[in-house]
Amino acid sequence: MARPKPLSGFPEYLPRERMVELAVLDTLRETFELHGFANVETRSVEPLTQLSRKGEITKEVYVVRRLHADEHDSNELGLHFDLTVPLARWVLEHSGHLQFPFRRYQIQKVWRGERPQEGRYREFTQADIDILGQGELAAHHDVEAPLVMLEALENLHEQIGLAPVLMHVNNRKLSEGFYRGLGIEDTLAVLQLVDKYAKIGPQATQELLVSELGLTSSVADKCVQLAGIRSSDTGFVQQVRDLGVSDPLLEEGLTELVTLVEQAHKRVPGRLCADLSIARGLDYYTGSVYETELVGHEAMGSISSGGRYDSLASDGKNSYPGVGISLGVTRLLAPLLAKNEFVVSRSVPTCVVVAVDNEDTRSGADEVAALLRARGVPCEVAPKADKYGKQIRYADRRGIPFVWFGGLVGEVKDIRSGEQQPADAQEWMPSDHTDLWPQVLPAE
Amino acid sequence: MARPKPLSGFPEYLPRERMVELAVLDTLRETFELHGFANVETRSVEPLTQLSRKGEITKEVYVVRRLHADEHDSNELGLHFDLTVPLARWVLEHSGHLQFPFRRYQIQKVWRGERPQEGRYREFTQADIDILGQGELAAHHDVEAPLVMLEALENLHEQIGLAPVLMHVNNRKLSEGFYRGLGIEDTLAVLQLVDKYAKIGPQATQELLVSELGLTSSVADKCVQLAGIRSSDTGFVQQVRDLGVSDPLLEEGLTELVTLVEQAHKRVPGRLCADLSIARGLDYYTGSVYETELVGHEAMGSISSGGRYDSLASDGKNSYPGVGISLGVTRLLAPLLAKNEFVVSRSVPTCVVVAVDNEDTRSGADEVAALLRARGVPCEVAPKADKYGKQIRYADRRGIPFVWFGGLVGEVKDIRSGEQQPADAQEWMPSDHTDLWPQVLPAE
Repeated sequence: MARPKPLSGFPEYLPRERMVELAVLDTLRETFELHGFANVETRSVEPLTQLSRKGEITKEVYVVRRLHADEHDSNELGLHFDLTVPLARWVLEHSGHLQFPFRRYQIQKVWRGERPQEGRYREFTQADIDILGQGELAAHHDVEAPLVMLEALENLHEQIGLAPVLMHVNNRKLSEGFYRGLGIEDTLAVLQLVDKYAKIGPQATQELLVSELGLTSSVADKCVQLAGIRSSDTGFVQQVRDLGVSDPLLEEGLTELVTLVEQAHKRVPGRLCADLSIARGLDYYTGSVYETELVGHEAMGSISSGGRYDSLASDGKNSYPGVGISLGVTRLLAPLLAKNEFVVSRSVPTCVVVAVDNEDTRSGADEVAALLRARGVPCEVAPKADKYGKQIRYADRRGIPFVWFGGLVGEVKDIRSGEQQPADAQEWMPSDHTDLWPQVLPAE
Repeated sequence: MARPKPLSGFPEYLPRERMVELAVLDTLRETFELHGFANVETRSVEPLTQLSRKGEITKEVYVVRRLHADEHDSNELGLHFDLTVPLARWVLEHSGHLQFPFRRYQIQKVWRGERPQEGRYREFTQADIDILGQGELAAHHDVEAPLVMLEALENLHEQIGLAPVLMHVNNRKLSEGFYRGLGIEDTLAVLQLVDKYAKIGPQATQELLVSELGLTSSVADKCVQLAGIRSSDTGFVQQVRDLGVSDPLLEEGLTELVTLVEQAHKRVPGRLCADLSIARGLDYYTGSVYETELVGHEAMGSISSGGRYDSLASDGKNSYPGVGISLGVTRLLAPLLAKNEFVVSRSVPTCVVVAVDNEDTRSGADEVAALLRARGVPCEVAPKADKYGKQIRYADRRGIPFVWFGGLVGEVKDIRSGEQQPADAQEWMPSDHTDLWPQVLPAE
């Protein structure tokens, strides 16, 4: 077989790169669980009808069919393209077994048949947290969800040197209330145009509001002025008031956004700003909305987005309002890994290679390794009773720090320093505990 | 929307059940990494041509197509149906970046469009370990791979009370050498018939060997006698010799199987037996073969299977012989979870609910929770400043053991005993450390 070629849009990692991803996933899991989120996985497929929005199936869906399916196999399936639509279905299906408010995190692959390009993938991993209520959900959860994600990202900043983030937040009530205060009826249409503000700038946004939605020039001006407001503290309130528009929904949105900005300032200072251009294209958001930039990598686009939704799921008897935020794990990591932004201390979990004198004493080496493992030290036994120099090279090529010689009471060599010392397999541990498992560190 | 129905063959778990699966996956990962296996994930799709064997595509493959794909989209993709075929492709693709022997573990979902029935799923999780050489791979790895999997299963037995296992092993060289010694040419055909021995019994196997393969009755008798040999120690050697057949390949197989049985006896006594009826249908095995029963649940079939293969992957310049064994995680767990064979101490990770006096002091409760979390205690803040009795019920319904009242220096109530004690958020830990995280235990 000739050397296979990669499939565009389906990234794969070498073991070292996967170690970085595993470290990231471990940190996410730990942070989410410390906040009481339970893990859920949903099946990878949904009926195609579930993957449509208002009857329209977006073209990015991958359809899945058995190769020799019956012609009458009516149950057409597609791979899920996010973790929110499956969550809505799963909660309706299992609501009788859940306690509300229900907090779940979900880390899975999703698929989109988009044209592959930098930062866009056809198969990629998402990590979502959501809090769902039954009938109602208090507004303080709108503050909680983004702060949990910011805490996870801050942990990654501290632990593996991920660049710091800046989360941009807004509130749909604020924007829609403002538009209503201006006398605009189709507020969603304005939001969807304002969503382009960051890309096309204020001038072009203003022109589109006039030409496409028929707003008067002065009303369109106000909308663009609102979108231009940005502050790292609660200064945005006065700036909004200065525009002279009033509406009860606007007030509600202002109050919620103030609380979010204040709480974030306390818990993760410097990582969140009010940015009234943030709109989020999706129509199901009804309150807070979030987008997140990796500082110094703004061209990546938002790595973590979400918001409040009041009626994503409903079974007629109950509605399930919620708030959630999703981290694009592959979208974040794949470009950074390609640029070698992280260093891994070795390419295998192994801490110690136990050398083999000759094939007849291999089982003695197996015993040493078993004893070390029982005490939590990752070990391999050398694959061949080569000369010691060759066995040391086996370890060296993989970045494994130690080689063990002899039996249960033997000697251990740190092949980086060349130092060799007596060691007892019942007691030995690496003197530097960071040598025990591979470490992920920022590249210098 | 009406309550959605489950999709047959696509099992999903409630959070409690997922906790059991996570505990199992954590144990597998730890065991594999302690043995120096590095983690790899491959993309979920392969070109359909890769999913065929000798040009024939098995009907179980799921084909994946973009909903609005171009008609000329020639690159037809299918979901992988195991982790071995993708490994072979991945190793050829990345061999220049790998060190051999290469040890990897891989835990991913796979898909097969089989008719759903008990123990058969259309989407399920597999956990594989493989050791691959470049050009050559020493026979001692045939002993290592199954012992690592047995160690993982033994850890699960001890940690969460999974039933013990019995691994049945054989060696293709032994069987094929024996058949050659009898003058049989198409040894693979005999193997594939003998593979049915456990299901159809000796009599029917003998008749098929005569009727379908044209063996003489006495030769067929010998084959069936060989398949009937089973021993928990090396007693099988004498039983084979007693059949009076000799062949150099048979001798090689006997020697390898003796080593495996002896080593297993030392490391995981009572968990492995020689069973010369084990054949494995797949044509790529060339040496040791493994199948594993869960004791008391033999009707499940084999939960963990694998073997030695000498030429699964080859790029013309090099061949990559390997040995591997796969654990059917879903196949093992889904039936046990359905029978409630495990107990989880609570349905959420949360150890402490911090009570809220009134909504104005919520941020004080947030501070207590943040401090506890920073010290590794999973916490939630109560969602509503209800009466304390209601906040305690919130914890109780989820099995959360502790409720915190007051500020950083407050009181903590163990809601199981009702005992309430002063506590400082800078110091407090549950007195029983097993209360810190949810525990998975065997049901009584």
